[in-house]
Amino acid sequence: MSSIKRFAIEIEYDGTNFMGWQDQPDQRTVQSEIESALKKISGKLTRIIGSGRTDSGVHALAQVAHFEIERDILPDKIRLALNSILNKDVVILQCVEVGDNFHAQHDTESKTYEYRILNRRAESALRQLRTWHIRSELDINLMREASNYLIGKIDFTSFCRKKSITPCNLRTVSSLNIERKIDEIILQITADGFLRHMVRNIVGTLVEVGTGARSARNIPILIKSKDRRLAGPTAPPHGLSLINVDYGKDIFKE
Amino acid sequence: MSSIKRFAIEIEYDGTNFMGWQDQPDQRTVQSEIESALKKISGKLTRIIGSGRTDSGVHALAQVAHFEIERDILPDKIRLALNSILNKDVVILQCVEVGDNFHAQHDTESKTYEYRILNRRAESALRQLRTWHIRSELDINLMREASNYLIGKIDFTSFCRKKSITPCNLRTVSSLNIERKIDEIILQITADGFLRHMVRNIVGTLVEVGTGARSARNIPILIKSKDRRLAGPTAPPHGLSLINVDYGKDIFKE
Repeated sequence: MSSIKRFAIEIEYDGTNFMGWQDQPDQRTVQSEIESALKKISGKLTRIIGSGRTDSGVHALAQVAHFEIERDILPDKIRLALNSILNKDVVILQCVEVGDNFHAQHDTESKTYEYRILNRRAESALRQLRTWHIRSELDINLMREASNYLIGKIDFTSFCRKKSITPCNLRTVSSLNIERKIDEIILQITADGFLRHMVRNIVGTLVEVGTGARSARNIPILIKSKDRRLAGPTAPPHGLSLINVDYGKDIFKE
Repeated sequence: MSSIKRFAIEIEYDGTNFMGWQDQPDQRTVQSEIESALKKISGKLTRIIGSGRTDSGVHALAQVAHFEIERDILPDKIRLALNSILNKDVVILQCVEVGDNFHAQHDTESKTYEYRILNRRAESALRQLRTWHIRSELDINLMREASNYLIGKIDFTSFCRKKSITPCNLRTVSSLNIERKIDEIILQITADGFLRHMVRNIVGTLVEVGTGARSARNIPILIKSKDRRLAGPTAPPHGLSLINVDYGKDIFKE
């Protein structure tokens, strides 16, 4: 009789044709696709636990999840078997055996998201599903000035989807970088956790700063207000990608 | 009565769902889509002449074409009107009025193509339609050594699709750069002209060098042989993009 083993997987997905990460009845989600592929391998219902949800349309370069299988199988065999079953918009990049106490959600120390803005006159034929197109020229110096107010341990209630506000909305943003690469503006934000829509609401607000519609100095006032209605619009999901989940060590190092 | 005016357009397209650039009966091509959009604007059949063809599946970041319209209309109005009619996988980036003697094909001084290889273990969910996935690690130093033999005025018969071999297959490659960017190997090649499948056959051959299956020193022998059968396989089209057409001046400068 084989014992139960726990595995962690690293997953890349194109969020375009998914209703997000989390299982939902009658919807195509990343979690449910991987779970049904695992069922074919393990022979029974196998639940996976991700580092956290991503919303409909949001991509991932390196989402992490764990699950248990009661079958003697090598991690790389699982990876190859999953990739042969899954559709091409989900790819298992790595699979390793982890200790019984590893938890893909609870053990996260920080996560990093990237948001890509296409800042030029015309839309892109090749990048339309990966970038948010903004015609008016954005001043990234102003956006950087504003972003400085968002670094540290802050109550992000003003940037949280209203329905999802919880008793504690304190999160610690350890870095928020904004770079221009040719015609794109790329934001990378690392925090110990994110509220629902937090990155997209930050991006929507920073874009207002970049166009001059909102002053950078308004950001501390906005944070204090704890009023979502005073922040900018929610940036569209397709510009957003989860690019790293940090567990304080490289769990995939073989 | 309005006079006939000639316009040049710069076009980005995602080649995935096109049977290439050139008009073909009952096929979706970039040329035919733009021509039917122009017909709606000009009121009559308007032929466009591109800088050259691209094959089925090949992308373009900056293809150039010209056409004539007998209607008083501002270039930027044409651009906006075309973009409002065209599907999202073709975007008109620029439109300017050009002189009567400008010719998008005959006036080209050089063109630059880019080929992207994803060189890592797993396929990519997000880049599968833009890169050629090669699992085995490629040695780009060997590929660079081999590429040096391909720079200059050379008879590229060995790299030309057999059916398309013409009396003169001399072309001048002015640069061929190979760079590794994280998990991608990116080749950029500039020449005064390209034979059919030339870039893809060069890439297929350089990949053989990168894996060690062919020595770099074989390249001059291969060139001399003028025998397509001795070169490597044709790399798939979806890794290839036309990234620049050079007319010796910036025709889109306003």
